[in-house]
Amino acid sequence: MSMYLWLVIAAGGLGVLYGAVQTAALMKASTGNDRMREIAAAIQEGASAYLRRQYTTIGIVGVVILIAAWLLIGPWAAVGFLIGAVLSGAAGFAGMLISVRANVRTAQAASESLSKGLDLAFRSGAITGMFVAGGALLGVAGYFAFLTLGAGFEPTSREVIDGLVALGFGASLISIFARLGGGIFTKGADVGGDMVGKVEAGIPEDDPRNAATIADNVGDNVGDCAGMAADLFETYAVTTVATMVLAAIFFRGQPYVEAMMLLPLLICAVCIVTSIIGSFFVRLGKSQNIMGALYQGLIVTGVLSIAAIFGLFQFLRGEDILGPVVTSGGLTIEPMSLFWSGMVGLAVTAAIVVITEYYTGTNYRPVKSVANASVSGHGTNVIQGLAMSLESTALPALTIIIGIVATYQLAGLFGIAIATTTMLGVAGMIVALDAFGPVTDNAGGIAEMAGLPPDVRTSTDALDAVGNTTKAVTKGYAIGSAGLGALVLFAAYTEDLKHFAAEAAPGSFFDGLGAVAFDLANPYVVVGLLFGGLLPFLFGGLSMTAVGRAAESVVAEVRRQFRENPGIMTGEVKPEYGKAVDILTSAAIREMIVPSLLPVLSPIVLFVVVLMIQPDKANAFAALGAMLMGVIVTGLFVAISMTSGGGAWDNAKKVIEEGFTDRNGVVHGKGSEAHKAAVTGDTVGDPYKDTSGPAVNPMIKITNIVALLLLAVLASGKIV
Amino acid sequence: MSMYLWLVIAAGGLGVLYGAVQTAALMKASTGNDRMREIAAAIQEGASAYLRRQYTTIGIVGVVILIAAWLLIGPWAAVGFLIGAVLSGAAGFAGMLISVRANVRTAQAASESLSKGLDLAFRSGAITGMFVAGGALLGVAGYFAFLTLGAGFEPTSREVIDGLVALGFGASLISIFARLGGGIFTKGADVGGDMVGKVEAGIPEDDPRNAATIADNVGDNVGDCAGMAADLFETYAVTTVATMVLAAIFFRGQPYVEAMMLLPLLICAVCIVTSIIGSFFVRLGKSQNIMGALYQGLIVTGVLSIAAIFGLFQFLRGEDILGPVVTSGGLTIEPMSLFWSGMVGLAVTAAIVVITEYYTGTNYRPVKSVANASVSGHGTNVIQGLAMSLESTALPALTIIIGIVATYQLAGLFGIAIATTTMLGVAGMIVALDAFGPVTDNAGGIAEMAGLPPDVRTSTDALDAVGNTTKAVTKGYAIGSAGLGALVLFAAYTEDLKHFAAEAAPGSFFDGLGAVAFDLANPYVVVGLLFGGLLPFLFGGLSMTAVGRAAESVVAEVRRQFRENPGIMTGEVKPEYGKAVDILTSAAIREMIVPSLLPVLSPIVLFVVVLMIQPDKANAFAALGAMLMGVIVTGLFVAISMTSGGGAWDNAKKVIEEGFTDRNGVVHGKGSEAHKAAVTGDTVGDPYKDTSGPAVNPMIKITNIVALLLLAVLASGKIV
Repeated sequence: MSMYLWLVIAAGGLGVLYGAVQTAALMKASTGNDRMREIAAAIQEGASAYLRRQYTTIGIVGVVILIAAWLLIGPWAAVGFLIGAVLSGAAGFAGMLISVRANVRTAQAASESLSKGLDLAFRSGAITGMFVAGGALLGVAGYFAFLTLGAGFEPTSREVIDGLVALGFGASLISIFARLGGGIFTKGADVGGDMVGKVEAGIPEDDPRNAATIADNVGDNVGDCAGMAADLFETYAVTTVATMVLAAIFFRGQPYVEAMMLLPLLICAVCIVTSIIGSFFVRLGKSQNIMGALYQGLIVTGVLSIAAIFGLFQFLRGEDILGPVVTSGGLTIEPMSLFWSGMVGLAVTAAIVVITEYYTGTNYRPVKSVANASVSGHGTNVIQGLAMSLESTALPALTIIIGIVATYQLAGLFGIAIATTTMLGVAGMIVALDAFGPVTDNAGGIAEMAGLPPDVRTSTDALDAVGNTTKAVTKGYAIGSAGLGALVLFAAYTEDLKHFAAEAAPGSFFDGLGAVAFDLANPYVVVGLLFGGLLPFLFGGLSMTAVGRAAESVVAEVRRQFRENPGIMTGEVKPEYGKAVDILTSAAIREMIVPSLLPVLSPIVLFVVVLMIQPDKANAFAALGAMLMGVIVTGLFVAISMTSGGGAWDNAKKVIEEGFTDRNGVVHGKGSEAHKAAVTGDTVGDPYKDTSGPAVNPMIKITNIVALLLLAVLASGKIV
Repeated sequence: MSMYLWLVIAAGGLGVLYGAVQTAALMKASTGNDRMREIAAAIQEGASAYLRRQYTTIGIVGVVILIAAWLLIGPWAAVGFLIGAVLSGAAGFAGMLISVRANVRTAQAASESLSKGLDLAFRSGAITGMFVAGGALLGVAGYFAFLTLGAGFEPTSREVIDGLVALGFGASLISIFARLGGGIFTKGADVGGDMVGKVEAGIPEDDPRNAATIADNVGDNVGDCAGMAADLFETYAVTTVATMVLAAIFFRGQPYVEAMMLLPLLICAVCIVTSIIGSFFVRLGKSQNIMGALYQGLIVTGVLSIAAIFGLFQFLRGEDILGPVVTSGGLTIEPMSLFWSGMVGLAVTAAIVVITEYYTGTNYRPVKSVANASVSGHGTNVIQGLAMSLESTALPALTIIIGIVATYQLAGLFGIAIATTTMLGVAGMIVALDAFGPVTDNAGGIAEMAGLPPDVRTSTDALDAVGNTTKAVTKGYAIGSAGLGALVLFAAYTEDLKHFAAEAAPGSFFDGLGAVAFDLANPYVVVGLLFGGLLPFLFGGLSMTAVGRAAESVVAEVRRQFRENPGIMTGEVKPEYGKAVDILTSAAIREMIVPSLLPVLSPIVLFVVVLMIQPDKANAFAALGAMLMGVIVTGLFVAISMTSGGGAWDNAKKVIEEGFTDRNGVVHGKGSEAHKAAVTGDTVGDPYKDTSGPAVNPMIKITNIVALLLLAVLASGKIV
């Protein structure tokens, strides 16, 4: 069995190796002229400085938790936490390092041809994607190998399970800080810069006279690249860990338990290879259709994954590693049912891609309706955007519902887990599509600031518009998988609880607990649902406020520079870009702390409070479990509505900028009243889609993981 | 026992009588000059025409359901449905009839003094309030008396329970149509009129040159008055019915079952009297503090209610009608525990009033932060408004959580029911505070259009600003009570299901069903939660789109009139007000149908689909039950965020209009850039707070009631 584990580790290594080799190739590309290099250096410097400060701050929180994990659970949990945290942070840092180098090279390549621009931008995205997927697989499989083969623990032992869960927690914790801090930075710069530049001073986006431009470009790298990479790393790691834990619980004591724990890793390993192959199929055809080129790569990855996973299952069955298995609940699962569950996972991915494209793409009713509403003013633009944002939750939710029912019918809860893992398997490719966006956005900014010919900007704008949709797609994918992944975590929580209650030593915390029913007729379950349900709303409110505050500080700073230095407006004097970056750095780091700790502390607070007001431990566990479900239920809708709505607003603005013919046949373009209204919508959508919405994803999972760790702490007997 | 029932009916009659007597007094007040009467007549005509068409359309849906209820459940359910529907419709109609007569009289009274204006406006609100509360109590208690004393059914018989539930359904169904249709009308007029008038043409609100002004004033009456009255009627009726049904189930076969079913009615009866007394304490003091005057009445009602309910309990205990009771689940409840549960209900009301005032009042952080954000532009205004809207859900949700835990600890699920009933007991007074708002809004419109001296408008504006907060308070109250009321309905669903399963005849639908567990570990429960969770989002999306469309049609119409008839702008020609009213009438009626049917059909669809894809009936019932909870969980947050957020936006605009000093000491007033941004926020908030948000309240309850009726249909054996 260990051979397969080594193969998985090799696949993870292959992903990282691909990233390293491609990086070397990328670095050889031309960085353009001195002005471009100068701007790129400023962006690099700002981004590195920000991330260093962000990770230092997170480090302090991390060390506290590391010590707590060591003391309350044990050394292996602490080491797992450390690995997850460090790798998640590294994924983010790597994403940033790549993108701040790829941006200027993409600008230069786009000045040669659209095809070269696409090629370079996508390649940089693929590097980040493979670092994320490969690194996550390497981390999970590597630590699993270390614990089982190195330290010699049983695969189903508490050391292994707690270690893996702690690894997931480390990844999640870093990722929520990175998502939120980066999101506040990037959107503070974007919103603030747009308002004071485009709206007040009437100068174009990315105009070098605007002191916030460098900060805006820094933001793309620390938010959309680093934050996103950390987030997807977390999603990948947590999902595989949750599936492994569920396998350990379901098949404990069975001869095939190890095979079942390996299965999610093997699926991921196979998909890394197919993602790498697929990445070579992204090539601009004669039609110059950018989205088509990207879809080509995605479809190749999908089709190859289906074939490869099928092959994997056939091979494993041939080797007698996979056969019918029986869960602890007595359900018999045929191996091909697990294969079909995986296919459902891929189908859910495809459906979410299509639905998200419908709600955020420029050719369909939702974006057009927002563009039309812009004609009658700011208010109607926002109303229609909110309407679409609310409406856009329905189909993804139905997709997830169908996915749950289908996989559950196929293979029970473990089927849901395998579906989610398979969904995440192709994350390398999906991240590539996403990271491509901010790189082209940055390239456009550099082209503008360096005064490259307008056709370069046209090329980067075309790439950027596609990037808007692919970014929305990734977020829909991340949140959809988070919804399913969280159900797997919830299942792990309930099964873990059963296990602890059944095996409780006399006098231990779980002694006499009996079966905990998460019955909706129990008011403590309702209380948990409502308390969990309020978290995404409160979290959204806090993070939106944070962006507003950060943006206001940028507006004040840019206004001050314009006022105190009239030479900036005439172009004689360069604005102090660094000041704006500094201000945002402090603001983002200050603002990210409280909302990020909300999901970490809430499960503990709820559990303790319910235990204090009434004596029945079962009610406290039931309330906690229901809280996890409450977070998933409202979090899913809040996150989808925010990311889709934001994408629709952004693209409605782009549609108008390209010249939009409304229902009455009137054409509206840049600078029109409709455009101004659309800019308002875009501004509102910015924190929606790039700060609050995506950060809900790690938030959902943190609450779930904290609950799992709380069980581990209570079971360790070290505090109670 | 029947004597007490007659006393309840008498109290209901007293409420209606108070309304009638006060109406007669109101009609004697002066209607001002001819111009005012002319405008008022146009508003009356438009409002009556709209409501007639709305109720005709609803009537068609109603007749279909009436026949279905008769065929599928039985005649008493059909009659109950008819009573609920007719009375709810009548409450709406009465609210409209009063307010279209009170508006012009308030304008005239305000031209004499602020105090007289307040007096008249509040008195008209109190009339509507007492019609609503008295009428609802009369309907529920009267039909209960008819069924038990007249037709001779046992109080716990299916005929009585199904009849009462059907009465609640009738009220809910009318109320969602009225809320939504009226909401689309009023906000279509408001948003459309503001955009084309204030923003485009640069003329003030309610300027007679704007063709949408009459429609705007009509909207206040059909949406904020008629819709609100129907909504609160529904909330009141459904809550008392749900509590009675729960009592019937919990105490079936016990000697005190009838007393327990009467208890909610008696509490409501007592509170009608205290509300009437409290209404006389609304009088403007020397300080001219309008909010203070209203609070005075509310506090008197609250204190008197505490005393009166305490007296009621003492009396009933003295008469040996109330004593310790034991539920079917074996829980013993002391009578004073029920008293304290009622007090928790009043405390929840008070807490929600305070929290809502904090989030929407002009003196606190949230509204000020939105005003401050307006200084940096449209985008930041909306971002901050959304942030506050999301944040504002947390404290009300915590209040409800605490209420659930406290009452459950006191008296189990029945404690929650009694708390909700007591909360609703004072609805007469709360409706009075709410209905007061649109009347003053209208009075201001009439004063403006009739060219009354500016100080009249100043008085009505002062009254209107307070109206904004009281309207938000009522909505918070309605939704908070809906959250609790829905839990009572959910409990009725689960208990009913147990009952049917236990008593199932061989071969009947419930035969062999056994216990249905609503366990979150069951994926069908998760599916139900997610499906229920998506409904408020989809509903919100559809209704926001509807308002946007209605507003766009108004904008197009007003623009056309300005264009084709330049005399309108110069004031030489009167615009065609009727055209705008007609257009909105068609739009509102067309747009209200689909969203309103969503909660009616969804429970049935989910149940049937789950039954089709797998054979286990228990899973279908579990999914349906979970769906009810899903609607409550997300609905509560969606509704609160919309109504509080909308109120905050509206008052942020008012704060700026009064001259707002921002953080940097700069003053912004009417016509400033900050004001324009605030108008955008107000526009966005309009459908949030007056269409989508409040309509979620009946929506939540309809899904719950439909589920209860589905059980009744299945149990009747008439279709399966």
